[in-house]
Amino acid sequence: MKEVSKLMDYRADIKVLDATLRDGGLVNEFRFTDDFVKALYLANIRAGVDYMEFGYKGDKSMFDVDKFGPLKFCDDDYIRSIVGENNTDLKIGIMADVGRCNYKEDIHDASESPVDLIRVATYLHQIPTAVSMIEDAKNKGYEVSCNIMAISNARESDIEAALDILGKSPVDVLYIVDSFGSLYPEQVVRTINIYKEFADKYNKKLGIHAHNNQQLAFANTIEAVGDGVDWLDATYASMGRGAGNCAMELLLGFLKNPKYNVYPAIQFIEKYMPAIRASGAVWGYDFQYMMTGLLNQHPRTAIEFTKEGREDYSEFYKEILAQE
Amino acid sequence: MKEVSKLMDYRADIKVLDATLRDGGLVNEFRFTDDFVKALYLANIRAGVDYMEFGYKGDKSMFDVDKFGPLKFCDDDYIRSIVGENNTDLKIGIMADVGRCNYKEDIHDASESPVDLIRVATYLHQIPTAVSMIEDAKNKGYEVSCNIMAISNARESDIEAALDILGKSPVDVLYIVDSFGSLYPEQVVRTINIYKEFADKYNKKLGIHAHNNQQLAFANTIEAVGDGVDWLDATYASMGRGAGNCAMELLLGFLKNPKYNVYPAIQFIEKYMPAIRASGAVWGYDFQYMMTGLLNQHPRTAIEFTKEGREDYSEFYKEILAQE
Repeated sequence: MKEVSKLMDYRADIKVLDATLRDGGLVNEFRFTDDFVKALYLANIRAGVDYMEFGYKGDKSMFDVDKFGPLKFCDDDYIRSIVGENNTDLKIGIMADVGRCNYKEDIHDASESPVDLIRVATYLHQIPTAVSMIEDAKNKGYEVSCNIMAISNARESDIEAALDILGKSPVDVLYIVDSFGSLYPEQVVRTINIYKEFADKYNKKLGIHAHNNQQLAFANTIEAVGDGVDWLDATYASMGRGAGNCAMELLLGFLKNPKYNVYPAIQFIEKYMPAIRASGAVWGYDFQYMMTGLLNQHPRTAIEFTKEGREDYSEFYKEILAQE
Repeated sequence: MKEVSKLMDYRADIKVLDATLRDGGLVNEFRFTDDFVKALYLANIRAGVDYMEFGYKGDKSMFDVDKFGPLKFCDDDYIRSIVGENNTDLKIGIMADVGRCNYKEDIHDASESPVDLIRVATYLHQIPTAVSMIEDAKNKGYEVSCNIMAISNARESDIEAALDILGKSPVDVLYIVDSFGSLYPEQVVRTINIYKEFADKYNKKLGIHAHNNQQLAFANTIEAVGDGVDWLDATYASMGRGAGNCAMELLLGFLKNPKYNVYPAIQFIEKYMPAIRASGAVWGYDFQYMMTGLLNQHPRTAIEFTKEGREDYSEFYKEILAQE
């Protein structure tokens, strides 16, 4: 149990990262209007958010630029068209997926880029490439974090091996990622304890990226705050793939650091989120995501179920049970 | 932190109580069809739910019987028309509100009633009347629980005084009720510790009834399970006043006792909940409820905001801030 004083007071080390464009972009092919992106940028500044993730550094030889909005690729020029020189306290991040990013060529020196943070996203079986990307980004002058995805069905010994390799790399932040939204708070605590051992040993920070399949994204995030995790991902109105993420408005309401302010988040949501929903983007807690979360499965079947407009939940449950 | 074995195994003392008709009835004036009530009863039996709360024992001299469905009043004959002699493992509960129930006359002897459990709902300033109702129900042969409502803005010393009085009464179960959906898991744990002192002293069981204003109803409920709270309230699809309750489907998915089964819950939701929504009943997490939860306020303003179809969230936030 956390102490009362910790609920009332705050840790200055906390960093809030807005992942709306990146995780949210997965449900609308990154087709955000410039107006939306600019308004989100301004909302983040006013809300005291620390980092704003713009999107992916997708490899243009793998992904058709005509099929996605610009934030699938996050060209420096595009980001600069929104943020100018970004003379603010809000730092800019982008995600680089192992195997889907031509990082050596497409990520330029930090001194030439509006980007501050490279977020390397990896599966457990790709750690050496992740390390190569981390070293590349670090050499180019960036802050670097690493998201190890889909850990909820990984063995602890594999996670420990990965953390020991990543610990020796120059990465700054190690992220706990509950890709399937299947972890309960107690499991988050246990997972943090594993990460913490290596974070302490190698002097790294910890972060958490939660999904809302079982309505636990916010609960797991604040559980993590109480256990020393500093970097917290959230998205406005939970916008993100499948059941979505930890809601920014809930997180800003919870955090007590005076620099955070929930009101600009409410204003942004009120003005911009209805149009995104109306444009056909679908996300958020629903029974199909609860079921894949419960069974600790990738949400792809639930996403398909949603896209097809199906409502035969009990049939779906039998289908995914058969995949176990 | 809870032990791994506690997550994998189960406590046989756990009781799941379905509050769909009672808390859900608050959003549709208890206008459930007999078909719905019967199907819910059968779903609960198949899902292994322990108690089903049918509704309120409302005082007919206070509430117009033409303005509400029958579960506002829970006449024994109506319940019997659904459950017959109820020769099942599912027990039947009803709620009796202090000050809104003519309990001496309207609650008959348990031997003549299909009801097993009387749930006395009280505010802190009504404890002596609650005790009188508890004694009355106990003398008539019922199991009796007591919900102390709206504790999130009560002083601990007042809660302790109430628990000491209730502890000396013949009540069986003391319920922690987060009426405003404002408690964080750490606060739930601290609240449980207070209740536990008196539960241990007076040999009472503990229960929890959570609301979902901050998407924490399920998280708070499973936090409580890990801390020795045995009676767990939930509702199908979270149906309940305002932001709704802990979702039955999430709770059944979490609990490991083999007697619980999530599949009948999914089937019920699929078949019956769309029609309830289509009939105009509105509930569930939304920004206005997040805001009243965050500010630890009664959700009545958010319910009004919802009824009026308003979407000016930032204006609403300023309004309720002004009420502080």
